[in-house]
Amino acid sequence: MEGVIVDCALYRSGKRVEETRNLVKIAAAARHDEDSFVWMGLFEPTETDLEGVARLFGLHPLAVQDAIGAHQRPKIDVYDDSLFVVLRTLTYLDKTSDVETGEIAMFIGRDMAITVRHGEGSELASVRRRMEEQPEVLMHGPAAVLYAVSDAVVDTYTEVAKELQTDVGELERSVFSPGRTDDFERVYKLKRELQEFRTAVVPLVEPLTSLAEQEVVAVAVAARPFFRDVLDHLLRVQEQVESLDVLLSGILQAHVAQVGLRQNEDMRKISAWVAILAVPTMIAGIYGMNFQHMPELHWQYGYPMALGLMAVICGALYRAFKRSGWL
Amino acid sequence: MEGVIVDCALYRSGKRVEETRNLVKIAAAARHDEDSFVWMGLFEPTETDLEGVARLFGLHPLAVQDAIGAHQRPKIDVYDDSLFVVLRTLTYLDKTSDVETGEIAMFIGRDMAITVRHGEGSELASVRRRMEEQPEVLMHGPAAVLYAVSDAVVDTYTEVAKELQTDVGELERSVFSPGRTDDFERVYKLKRELQEFRTAVVPLVEPLTSLAEQEVVAVAVAARPFFRDVLDHLLRVQEQVESLDVLLSGILQAHVAQVGLRQNEDMRKISAWVAILAVPTMIAGIYGMNFQHMPELHWQYGYPMALGLMAVICGALYRAFKRSGWL
Amino acid sequence: MEGVIVDCALYRSGKRVEETRNLVKIAAAARHDEDSFVWMGLFEPTETDLEGVARLFGLHPLAVQDAIGAHQRPKIDVYDDSLFVVLRTLTYLDKTSDVETGEIAMFIGRDMAITVRHGEGSELASVRRRMEEQPEVLMHGPAAVLYAVSDAVVDTYTEVAKELQTDVGELERSVFSPGRTDDFERVYKLKRELQEFRTAVVPLVEPLTSLAEQEVVAVAVAARPFFRDVLDHLLRVQEQVESLDVLLSGILQAHVAQVGLRQNEDMRKISAWVAILAVPTMIAGIYGMNFQHMPELHWQYGYPMALGLMAVICGALYRAFKRSGWL
Amino acid sequence: MEGVIVDCALYRSGKRVEETRNLVKIAAAARHDEDSFVWMGLFEPTETDLEGVARLFGLHPLAVQDAIGAHQRPKIDVYDDSLFVVLRTLTYLDKTSDVETGEIAMFIGRDMAITVRHGEGSELASVRRRMEEQPEVLMHGPAAVLYAVSDAVVDTYTEVAKELQTDVGELERSVFSPGRTDDFERVYKLKRELQEFRTAVVPLVEPLTSLAEQEVVAVAVAARPFFRDVLDHLLRVQEQVESLDVLLSGILQAHVAQVGLRQNEDMRKISAWVAILAVPTMIAGIYGMNFQHMPELHWQYGYPMALGLMAVICGALYRAFKRSGWL
Amino acid sequence: MEGVIVDCALYRSGKRVEETRNLVKIAAAARHDEDSFVWMGLFEPTETDLEGVARLFGLHPLAVQDAIGAHQRPKIDVYDDSLFVVLRTLTYLDKTSDVETGEIAMFIGRDMAITVRHGEGSELASVRRRMEEQPEVLMHGPAAVLYAVSDAVVDTYTEVAKELQTDVGELERSVFSPGRTDDFERVYKLKRELQEFRTAVVPLVEPLTSLAEQEVVAVAVAARPFFRDVLDHLLRVQEQVESLDVLLSGILQAHVAQVGLRQNEDMRKISAWVAILAVPTMIAGIYGMNFQHMPELHWQYGYPMALGLMAVICGALYRAFKRSGWL
Repeated sequence: MEGVIVDCALYRSGKRVEETRNLVKIAAAARHDEDSFVWMGLFEPTETDLEGVARLFGLHPLAVQDAIGAHQRPKIDVYDDSLFVVLRTLTYLDKTSDVETGEIAMFIGRDMAITVRHGEGSELASVRRRMEEQPEVLMHGPAAVLYAVSDAVVDTYTEVAKELQTDVGELERSVFSPGRTDDFERVYKLKRELQEFRTAVVPLVEPLTSLAEQEVVAVAVAARPFFRDVLDHLLRVQEQVESLDVLLSGILQAHVAQVGLRQNEDMRKISAWVAILAVPTMIAGIYGMNFQHMPELHWQYGYPMALGLMAVICGALYRAFKRSGWL
Repeated sequence: MEGVIVDCALYRSGKRVEETRNLVKIAAAARHDEDSFVWMGLFEPTETDLEGVARLFGLHPLAVQDAIGAHQRPKIDVYDDSLFVVLRTLTYLDKTSDVETGEIAMFIGRDMAITVRHGEGSELASVRRRMEEQPEVLMHGPAAVLYAVSDAVVDTYTEVAKELQTDVGELERSVFSPGRTDDFERVYKLKRELQEFRTAVVPLVEPLTSLAEQEVVAVAVAARPFFRDVLDHLLRVQEQVESLDVLLSGILQAHVAQVGLRQNEDMRKISAWVAILAVPTMIAGIYGMNFQHMPELHWQYGYPMALGLMAVICGALYRAFKRSGWL
Repeated sequence: MEGVIVDCALYRSGKRVEETRNLVKIAAAARHDEDSFVWMGLFEPTETDLEGVARLFGLHPLAVQDAIGAHQRPKIDVYDDSLFVVLRTLTYLDKTSDVETGEIAMFIGRDMAITVRHGEGSELASVRRRMEEQPEVLMHGPAAVLYAVSDAVVDTYTEVAKELQTDVGELERSVFSPGRTDDFERVYKLKRELQEFRTAVVPLVEPLTSLAEQEVVAVAVAARPFFRDVLDHLLRVQEQVESLDVLLSGILQAHVAQVGLRQNEDMRKISAWVAILAVPTMIAGIYGMNFQHMPELHWQYGYPMALGLMAVICGALYRAFKRSGWL
Repeated sequence: MEGVIVDCALYRSGKRVEETRNLVKIAAAARHDEDSFVWMGLFEPTETDLEGVARLFGLHPLAVQDAIGAHQRPKIDVYDDSLFVVLRTLTYLDKTSDVETGEIAMFIGRDMAITVRHGEGSELASVRRRMEEQPEVLMHGPAAVLYAVSDAVVDTYTEVAKELQTDVGELERSVFSPGRTDDFERVYKLKRELQEFRTAVVPLVEPLTSLAEQEVVAVAVAARPFFRDVLDHLLRVQEQVESLDVLLSGILQAHVAQVGLRQNEDMRKISAWVAILAVPTMIAGIYGMNFQHMPELHWQYGYPMALGLMAVICGALYRAFKRSGWL
Repeated sequence: MEGVIVDCALYRSGKRVEETRNLVKIAAAARHDEDSFVWMGLFEPTETDLEGVARLFGLHPLAVQDAIGAHQRPKIDVYDDSLFVVLRTLTYLDKTSDVETGEIAMFIGRDMAITVRHGEGSELASVRRRMEEQPEVLMHGPAAVLYAVSDAVVDTYTEVAKELQTDVGELERSVFSPGRTDDFERVYKLKRELQEFRTAVVPLVEPLTSLAEQEVVAVAVAARPFFRDVLDHLLRVQEQVESLDVLLSGILQAHVAQVGLRQNEDMRKISAWVAILAVPTMIAGIYGMNFQHMPELHWQYGYPMALGLMAVICGALYRAFKRSGWL
């Protein structure tokens, strides 16, 4: 159990007052003081780990089940007087331009805020440090923790979205550059990452809206503007992602069209040259015939005339093809 | 009648107390004891079979009609104090990568839970066994049966979705591999299966939401989180399926583009070679002409010079074509 | 007038009690007896025909106008204490795989059910016969007639949808068969028929939902499950049609891709053969040159060597092309 | 001012009682008599013209602003006890198959109905004449004028939709005819016209629905079925337009596919012929070589044998190409 | 601080009464007089600048945060008795046909209207001048400022939309002109600009609707028609943008199809010429064979006959190709 508890402390009036691993004592302290709550951070706990905590704080078994197994759908479930929140965290890997996902589950009650983290890339220590520097916010209790964590997570969305935007910009430049590139796989990969992004963002919009606008027991009215702020950032990221998707589709269409265009141009050029070459070949063939009576063959300047004829026709064809844009 | 009843027992306070095929007696027992209910499992009953049961438990004739004929739309109908539920079951066949569908209809009342199964691949015996091991859940009565069955069905959705995800991943690798593949039929088949999936999943979302969130007579308030859990898994599967569909469309677009690209590259390469070959043919034609006065023909090294000329031009063309990416 | 009245009878407590063409008398009888109603079936009445009926039963002039002219939008209009319903009937013509449409308008009041039929293929005599055999349903009055007719109409939708499904299945097989087919026109025709289907089905969903779920004067609460049943079938048909549309789009995409693929393969094959033939032609051209000093020409085995050279190069090319899949 | 007033009269109990250009007098008469109203028709009034009228009847300055400048969005704005309505009129020009748009703005109050017309092709004199022949409708006051005008406008939509349907039908025949046509520009033009159509129709649906179903001061309950009728026609036209758009997309897809198919067939045919011709050219080249020892050259029947060989190979190729559908 | 305040004045009953940079004094004056308010215009203030203002007028810290950092989502946030509004401004750059974006944030309270501008191209001095000339509007207080600014911003949307419409028109002409153009990049760029447009317009629709139709503390009922007017223009612009997007997609489809069509026509033409040339080459090859017994070679008119044969066959092919539309 020790290993999975990353940090655990009691907060009174927004200030960290006690840090202990004695869960029973700290839970009792929080329960009996209206102004106090426990903030506990767990990292990939086992079923037994979490069940102990669940008994202490009266967590709903279904929520506990969801918090153990990763790969949940992002959501905000309202239980009588507590919230169960699942967020998906996103990290952009520069090396592969891939997006990696992790998960954070949170139990938010009157007297506790328990975060359960799965996967790398979603550390919360810095969130806690920042909050401890703002006791006037942390004073609002566990809802402030929920705000801080979801704000931090949505901030990472914003960053990942920015990276994806850069990727789309690069793709755009590559596709419309005069060079001949095959970017279909890159387009597809970006589309897949946007899709992954969406599965993290979209399910959150509705419950966050209800936190920001409706009566939810665990969130004080005064705290709503904060959740509206998070929602706002979330909506912004969502619109950005939808925009990128539209642009990506546009890039793909243009790419398909241009690649086809250029390949056809190549083919036309090659075919036009073959057609030009066919003319002197034909003339040479004619003067290569073995008829006994072919007056030109006996002319003094027959040969240069034939060569001249070839050159003239080829030159005329070349000019004509240039004019109609075939070369 | 005997053959179609798979199992039939009376449950009191969540415990199996009596197993009998005497339906009249068991129905009466359930009706008179607030704490008891009958759980009966039928397999492909005939009209007469089901009408007997219907008379005993007062089932609505329209619901009975729907339970006999398979191929109903998944739905949850609310009758005064009972529910009629139709679920579609999905089974993934490894051999053909096909998805097979079956059907489960359920009558859920105060004193009975009747399941009617159509088609293979949707056995419920294990569900019953698992429930009988959890009397604290089964204590909630017929609603617990509804929960257990729908949870089991949605779990199979999750599994099938995972298989389809694997199929899409394979397709992805195949399409973006350097080899030349024709995957259009596979894409289409997967699209068709996703479509089938959707017809099972989508119609359930709305009624399950109302079971999880609204006042429905047959479902106690305390049981709602369980249905919210099922709904959650359903939504997760649905999002997964929609995601797969988006990816599949992306794969198809990329596949069409790449297949076209590669075929055009082949054509360009072949045409470029034909163009290169046309040059020596033309030169040979010229020196094959029969003019009397062709000085080159009499030169000592005329022949090697001609061959050299051919080689030089072909080499130059080859280099030029390589540079412009045509070869 | 006589010709347009297909059948007209007074029903009391669900039983046919009087059949007469004396409309005035029968209308009065229905009006004065709570338990009676007139069921009148008209076929393509003229304006004057219908205006007489309208005066007798107090039909709204706008509804009468709609009932005369065909080509109305399917709808269910609620007037104070009566309903005006327009349904579109569909018939599948086996010969041409076409879908033909007709129309049924209905006036449903407390004391009358008047059906107005336009176009062939929507006879109602069998519906009436079936209803007359079920007096326990017909007892519910004009709403039962509305149920019976709309149920019959939606049943024909189901049948037509089944035929279209067969057509889509055939198309699927044709497109993915190894043969070279041009199915674009068939795809388009099916798309057009699905579109026609939709214009019949979609506008009905919303008003039928309100009949099944909300308070509508003309429909007793006990009758609602019947309309929910019809709605259910309607939704099922609608989902089927949407599914077919999705499949059709998938078939079209795959068809376009495969036709292009195969045509390109043909072109590549032909071009590859032309390229192979260009080689011996070039060699022959070289040995056809007229240089005085060409040692090979004087060799004893020059000719077979040249032929051998051609054969070897062609063979090598053939093998190379086979390997890269160009032949 | 005189020029812009097309017609102006006082109506009492649905009958035209006074026609005058003395606006002050007629406005006063209408204001003081519950049963009377002014119906004034203006054609492209200037700002000053309309401001005079506005002062007389107390029109809202923003509405007046909208009524002067054309190119407004179709809408129905509800002011305290009056309505401001903007409709777009459509006219189909047979010569160019183009759709021209005009505009009608209407002020509907207790005592006045003022119509302001912009652009040709939307005359209202016939509407007024028809209304004056139906005093039982005009009795309902200015709402009747609103009904009559919007009914007339929606009727022109129906006509234009019919013309567009004819155009789509023609296009369909052209695309699926065996001839080779380039209909891409026609498809695009029709798409653009459908789009224009939509901008006229779609914004009206919602406000017309509220006129037909909700409490609006200026519209009596008894008049609602009339607006429902207009709404119904509007919805029908809208569905027709959406259907046409779906069909148009289908036509375009099929057209692209078929044009590509046929062009590829042409290319394949030409290439196949070139390939056939390459064979005798090669054989001729071989027998044109100048080797000293080529036994065939000295055979008595060498020449006809060579010709025969060419003919046999070409014939065989022709048959093979025919069989594989390349010719 | 001085540099960032563009203008700051006290307004009483709609008239500018005092202009001062002494914020404390002016704020106090506005607070104590029901009829007065401060209108302050800031340009890209720093965090410290704005925090001073925030303390004076009691602005919400989250709103202040949003007002400093640009790149916010357009929105209208309702705080207890004040509004925080973010608008995106659009400017069309003629030179590059690009759309540049700026931002305006506004704090609207009972006694103040504070505008914060980011980026060029969104000056507000002219808006203030126009308002000061209409004291009867400015009398409505800060809501009038909100109206004036948002009206001005939406007017620029209308102008930009007009420019984009011109661009689409030009593109249309270019695409359907007989010339051969590659407009794919232009199509994509326009699509991207429409997308940018959307992100400015779409998020505003919902909150503006609520300003125009619902009870919002900061907006008097009498002012609602003004916001409905702005909303109307916004909707009009939005519909225009959606229409342009639909047209653009249509243009792209037609462009792809036509470019493909024309390129294929070119290829067919070139190939047809190559095929025609192949015939005389073959004939010449035949008469270039070295068989001893080739009677034609010895004929007096063998050579002209051979030439004639070539001419006849080429002419026949030319005619045949013309007829089938290949040349």
